[in-house]
Amino acid sequence: MGLFSSPPKVYKPAAEVDLGPDSDEQYISPNVKAPRVAGFLVKMLAWVLETPVLGWIVLAVLKRDNLVYKLVSDAEIPEPPLFTAAHTWQANPEQNVSLTKPGLSPAERVQEAAGCVPDDPPAPGFRSWTVLDFQRAYSSGQTTPVMVARRFLAAVEECSAPGLDMGMFISCDAADVMRQAEDSARRYHQGAPLSAMDGVLVAVKDELDCLPYPTTGGTRWLGAARRCAADAACVAQLRSCGAVMAGKTNMHELGAGTSGINPHHGATRNPYSLGRVSGGSSGGSAVAVCAGLCPVALGADGGGSVRMPAALCGVVGFKPTAGRISNSGLLPLNWTVGMPGILAATVEDTLIAYAAIADQSKPNHLQQPELNLPLLTRTRSMPSIRLARYAKWFDDSSEDIRSLCGKALQVLRAQYGWETVEVTVPEIEEMRLAHYVTMGSECTASLANYLDNTSETGWDVRIGLSAYRSFSSRDYLNSQRLRCRQMYFHEKIFETADAIVTPMTGVTAYALQEDARSTGELDYINGAALVRYSIAGNFLGLPAITVPVGYDRAGLPVGLQFIGRPWSEATLLHLAYAMQEACAGKEHRRKPKVHYDLLSKD
Amino acid sequence: MGLFSSPPKVYKPAAEVDLGPDSDEQYISPNVKAPRVAGFLVKMLAWVLETPVLGWIVLAVLKRDNLVYKLVSDAEIPEPPLFTAAHTWQANPEQNVSLTKPGLSPAERVQEAAGCVPDDPPAPGFRSWTVLDFQRAYSSGQTTPVMVARRFLAAVEECSAPGLDMGMFISCDAADVMRQAEDSARRYHQGAPLSAMDGVLVAVKDELDCLPYPTTGGTRWLGAARRCAADAACVAQLRSCGAVMAGKTNMHELGAGTSGINPHHGATRNPYSLGRVSGGSSGGSAVAVCAGLCPVALGADGGGSVRMPAALCGVVGFKPTAGRISNSGLLPLNWTVGMPGILAATVEDTLIAYAAIADQSKPNHLQQPELNLPLLTRTRSMPSIRLARYAKWFDDSSEDIRSLCGKALQVLRAQYGWETVEVTVPEIEEMRLAHYVTMGSECTASLANYLDNTSETGWDVRIGLSAYRSFSSRDYLNSQRLRCRQMYFHEKIFETADAIVTPMTGVTAYALQEDARSTGELDYINGAALVRYSIAGNFLGLPAITVPVGYDRAGLPVGLQFIGRPWSEATLLHLAYAMQEACAGKEHRRKPKVHYDLLSKD
Repeated sequence: MGLFSSPPKVYKPAAEVDLGPDSDEQYISPNVKAPRVAGFLVKMLAWVLETPVLGWIVLAVLKRDNLVYKLVSDAEIPEPPLFTAAHTWQANPEQNVSLTKPGLSPAERVQEAAGCVPDDPPAPGFRSWTVLDFQRAYSSGQTTPVMVARRFLAAVEECSAPGLDMGMFISCDAADVMRQAEDSARRYHQGAPLSAMDGVLVAVKDELDCLPYPTTGGTRWLGAARRCAADAACVAQLRSCGAVMAGKTNMHELGAGTSGINPHHGATRNPYSLGRVSGGSSGGSAVAVCAGLCPVALGADGGGSVRMPAALCGVVGFKPTAGRISNSGLLPLNWTVGMPGILAATVEDTLIAYAAIADQSKPNHLQQPELNLPLLTRTRSMPSIRLARYAKWFDDSSEDIRSLCGKALQVLRAQYGWETVEVTVPEIEEMRLAHYVTMGSECTASLANYLDNTSETGWDVRIGLSAYRSFSSRDYLNSQRLRCRQMYFHEKIFETADAIVTPMTGVTAYALQEDARSTGELDYINGAALVRYSIAGNFLGLPAITVPVGYDRAGLPVGLQFIGRPWSEATLLHLAYAMQEACAGKEHRRKPKVHYDLLSKD
Repeated sequence: MGLFSSPPKVYKPAAEVDLGPDSDEQYISPNVKAPRVAGFLVKMLAWVLETPVLGWIVLAVLKRDNLVYKLVSDAEIPEPPLFTAAHTWQANPEQNVSLTKPGLSPAERVQEAAGCVPDDPPAPGFRSWTVLDFQRAYSSGQTTPVMVARRFLAAVEECSAPGLDMGMFISCDAADVMRQAEDSARRYHQGAPLSAMDGVLVAVKDELDCLPYPTTGGTRWLGAARRCAADAACVAQLRSCGAVMAGKTNMHELGAGTSGINPHHGATRNPYSLGRVSGGSSGGSAVAVCAGLCPVALGADGGGSVRMPAALCGVVGFKPTAGRISNSGLLPLNWTVGMPGILAATVEDTLIAYAAIADQSKPNHLQQPELNLPLLTRTRSMPSIRLARYAKWFDDSSEDIRSLCGKALQVLRAQYGWETVEVTVPEIEEMRLAHYVTMGSECTASLANYLDNTSETGWDVRIGLSAYRSFSSRDYLNSQRLRCRQMYFHEKIFETADAIVTPMTGVTAYALQEDARSTGELDYINGAALVRYSIAGNFLGLPAITVPVGYDRAGLPVGLQFIGRPWSEATLLHLAYAMQEACAGKEHRRKPKVHYDLLSKD
């Protein structure tokens, strides 16, 4: 396998790596001579890679270019493999939290979360309607779930029509939405809504099972090949809170890309700039929330797939600790890095949805602590929090992102006294490659029996699958050894800080080019920049949240990310809320070009 | 990869598989047209397999023959992967045990174990000297550790000389052995031996670190490539009990074979018939115990490597639950299937050594219960035990083995009232292949950076390594999905029984042929028969023990195996002790052709 490779990296034992700010660890930014490829060239490359022998040689050259041989396959790694992100760290007690009682129902937890949200007047500047706005409007009789559902369906129709062509939904059954809304309206009429989420619209990424829809995973064929027999666990939990399941959102096919360009179901467009991508793979969910079609949507995050499109679309994206949300009913595109996540317009709504879908049924051996809900407040009575920053990594982003995220940290210091300590997070690019090998290997093994007929699969994804199939068991095992190292590094770093702070992406939403619409595109540079800060959340199962902190000079949203220690969701929600409130005001909050108001009187 | 394969197996969900005696699950016995290959043909095959493209094609044909495509690589498996054998089952309370206090030292645990051994007069028939025999002889002044060490060293010399050429030890430093023996003699002289194991000789498989020796793993080169800096954890524990480390025993090179034929350090000969193999890979340790050179030896068991040679050499072989003995200082030939194990002439000595090397330092999340030591007794006050047997599997052994093992079960029923229930253990051959893929993949990943220069490696092992290297990440992941199934099956079976009973091997020691001495041999049929009953102990981390139950018509030992539920070591030792005592008497206990008496007066 090392036929074309440069000498393999010899890793020193993890315990000998300096994690301090003056570490001599090398920061590798992917610096590849890889031109963007789209259209006919993508088709040709797929053909070549699917040709025996020739494909193998071309793939070997491509792998050499992205350093996978040097840093993973052939590397000398002292650590044994760590196969999953199950944590054995002791959880730290969190401050300013409401500890939910064990055994509460999702609806009861939603009520508790609603009580953690401050009742202050909203800050100035644009803001979407929140879950509690809908709940108050329904309870007061200002509107009804049926009226909101009608407006929603009209908006979906408009977004899907040739004029806007936003590629947001893969399926949306109007009759089913109306039936749910009528049920909810009846409950409000009887004065017995199930929870604060009753009648609230929630869009669901088409990677999660949600009746009555098939689950396509963004393909043309998986919905037929795999029967959807029941709601995913998190969908069922939301239903039990009265939420209205609003349809299945578009996604990058099989989650195997970051742009959100889907040749079968349309390219998902960014509501802040319709000529730009939404990011992915949960692009449709991010766009639906951004455009005001629902305050909350579900996504799934295997490599930043919730957080990254959330950042590109200016909404909140939240991936709790691995195991905190059940994977039951999530397409098994991988087994060890992905889980459902939440996209929401505000941190308050993120908290409420999190309370609804948290899974408290895990056995004790995972050492999962009871669920903490943060008491959100704009005052200085916030908990004391230490942030860690790795400057070389933090700064490996566009000038505007760097500047906005840097200013955000200054605001946190000024308003709450939260200091940022400088650290080194080693082997970032190594982790990205190890995660890619892991996700690709697991995707191949999981889907192989469905993938015999590749002709129905998009061209860019076929190229990805060719790469996935080429991984050896040694590639996979070495990747798990790098996981072991990273788990050690992060455990050490979290001894000095409560959260690691990074930009969410290295670039903002880039142009959606016409030649990519039917074939997808290969854009290694932009792709690597999009996932640059995502991987620890997946490969190590750490909780992570992104929150908007402003707009670049092109007017595109920029997200800041906090990565927490295991089970520190409450701390992350505190951080995100503080950041959201600090970034209120007109300069920080702009209305997307496409946005619907489902609540105001006409 | 499926180029040459028959249609892949479609597994039904594990929960739908009938585990009862009348199940229609198919039992697959490897029935391969694979002639034994040795000498020049082994070299030629190694050359071919190491040739790009040609090697790949030949390997594909070989894999087709052993069904690995059909049953693993291309199979359709509903379950997700299970990557390790860490158990989350609730441990059953065991009967008739002495629960050791937490925090005891190894020496204190040895004393407690010595107290669990009955003081009855020995049963008639041949028996080797036991740990307590040595301890009494040292304490009474009948002999000294120094005198025993001298006899030991003379015996090792004789065994290694051309006349016997038993290939038992890779290294044995006479000065080091004498120094330890003198230290022990001094302690006895001062009336302060460290434990019942003080002065007792223990041979150590050359896969475990033991100063002052390099750890070769049976190779010519690994001892130099990897420095041995400290004792393995279990070796250090034995030292702290006063045991005399008696040298490093021979093994199948890299544990990558079952015959015990090592081209660099000699073929290990069976003391019951010098023209026959010892089995492996812990062959040297089995032979050392069999020949009376030490009452206890350490081995390592990644695929039956302790239990199988123990059975072929007529001694006890014991592999506790995964995690019960520390892997620290064990060569990482794999990460998820292997662990140290014990070879001993008697069950009593197995218990005492187990008490010494058990690891009680594991974190709680593994749910490892406190250590239980069985109160061994020959009376009917033994605990009540239910045995499970899968007839098709049990009977897939030579006529003599089948008959002896069947009679053994009758004796247990007659003497203790222990009934045997009939069950089906599904997918035995499937598990063997999945385990092979797992062990081979992990071996490649672990050793790859040492293996650049294959020319120093034996021919048969080079062929094995060629196969190992060919496994894809999908092969590996599918193997872990089969592990998940098997864990489920065994958890269910253990709801109806306390132990599964099988023969230890399908054949007894076979002929050591001259043409294999320098090249090794490929003997797929005998190899598969040797490991047929071993795999659950490794792939699922279940505790398992083999105990001799007699001799076949060629006078070769036959072993019976008990496989237990996690942490049921005490139950297994009860079972093995009952079996040992039931099989006492001349007809069941024959002296090996090569046997040394280190204790009797001249």
